Amino acid sequence: MTEHIVSAYTDELEALSADILRMGGLAEAMTGDACEATVKSDDTLATMVVARDADVDALEADIERRIIEIIARRQPLARDLREVLSALKIANELERVGDLAKNIAKRAGVLEGFARRDVLKGIDRMGRAVTAQLSGVLDAFRNRDPARATKFWISDEDVDQLYNSYFREVLTYMIEDPRTIGDCAHILFMAKNLERIGDHATNIAEMIYFSVTGDYLSADDRPKADELPSPMDEGTPL
Amino acid sequence: MTEHIVSAYTDELEALSADILRMGGLAEAMTGDACEATVKSDDTLATMVVARDADVDALEADIERRIIEIIARRQPLARDLREVLSALKIANELERVGDLAKNIAKRAGVLEGFARRDVLKGIDRMGRAVTAQLSGVLDAFRNRDPARATKFWISDEDVDQLYNSYFREVLTYMIEDPRTIGDCAHILFMAKNLERIGDHATNIAEMIYFSVTGDYLSADDRPKADELPSPMDEGTPL
Repeated sequence: MTEHIVSAYTDELEALSADILRMGGLAEAMTGDACEATVKSDDTLATMVVARDADVDALEADIERRIIEIIARRQPLARDLREVLSALKIANELERVGDLAKNIAKRAGVLEGFARRDVLKGIDRMGRAVTAQLSGVLDAFRNRDPARATKFWISDEDVDQLYNSYFREVLTYMIEDPRTIGDCAHILFMAKNLERIGDHATNIAEMIYFSVTGDYLSADDRPKADELPSPMDEGTPL
Repeated sequence: MTEHIVSAYTDELEALSADILRMGGLAEAMTGDACEATVKSDDTLATMVVARDADVDALEADIERRIIEIIARRQPLARDLREVLSALKIANELERVGDLAKNIAKRAGVLEGFARRDVLKGIDRMGRAVTAQLSGVLDAFRNRDPARATKFWISDEDVDQLYNSYFREVLTYMIEDPRTIGDCAHILFMAKNLERIGDHATNIAEMIYFSVTGDYLSADDRPKADELPSPMDEGTPL
């Protein structure tokens, strides 16, 4: 009987992990699709991304409900408790990724009439970097692999650098042609959203590391290029 | 002896609440001070805001550690468990508020040479609205008052509207004088950060409501003006 209970508990934890991976897969796909919809001006795809956010939200609510139940009924301790609480926080991060991807997709619709498609190459570049980061972090989660989590935690710096250089690039388009300022402001926010998705992936990497090892990845270990994205006062070298 | 244990538990929960309020007070002050540092170009104040973020982070880490301990040792159920898990999430939201305020303060430094001080009035306006929202939500938390939480949950709409109109206003400055584009892009991000602080206050209001009532505030109850901040294609009425 005890064995039966323990096995049911293991099943619950595995189902929880599986659903977090499903949420992560959805959020990753939404991010990639939102960028593709932007670059290809694909309104149908953008609409699909927006619609899919409800699925991510529903998954989060369901995961949260189950975690509260697990804590109440199973009263996990030590690593099990860390794992369950990390799952709660990871689901929360993924929900935010979904929100940001949805916001990018909505802005894609606004940009449909935007003629300077070349300006959007940076969205494609950042989108690829960020989805790769999300994908790596989700792998680390599936394998409970702190080394892999650390690797993709560090790679956030690359995303931050892409963001900083793209930010400056978009500003030059705005200065060259003030008629693009409205559209380019949207592009700046899209880029910022991608950079924030990278931050969420980084947060997830920290949670995996903590959940498995019980230690914290220290923010001091990694140069944080995005703390003040693109200082634009001309005197400051970037 | 049982009474002694129960009373120690109550003390733990009260200390937790007190520290969340302290974190909230810090985050609220940082938000207000970051805006004041921006408007008055006060570098000393901006530096203080940036330094204070470490206190907020340390408080969050401490609160999180204690919550994990409380769950492990006390194994709370039903409303107690909801309360403790809400505390975990509220501390997380407040940590993000601190980050956003720090980011505003850093940008304030970048804007020091910016001549068009009149453009910054909107930061003052938004800053006041957002700190009032934070303050109201923290009151609701202290009194475990779902009605008050709902009130400030609804008021996020006002912040979103302030943001939308300020966004358009800043764009007009950029168009009028392209030399301000770099600085104005920072101002757009500062405004967006304030709007996001409002979103975090709203999230906290939802958590208080859930913690006390066990029910969710439905997103359908509130028109969400910020989902696509300021559609700028000229054909769309704002």
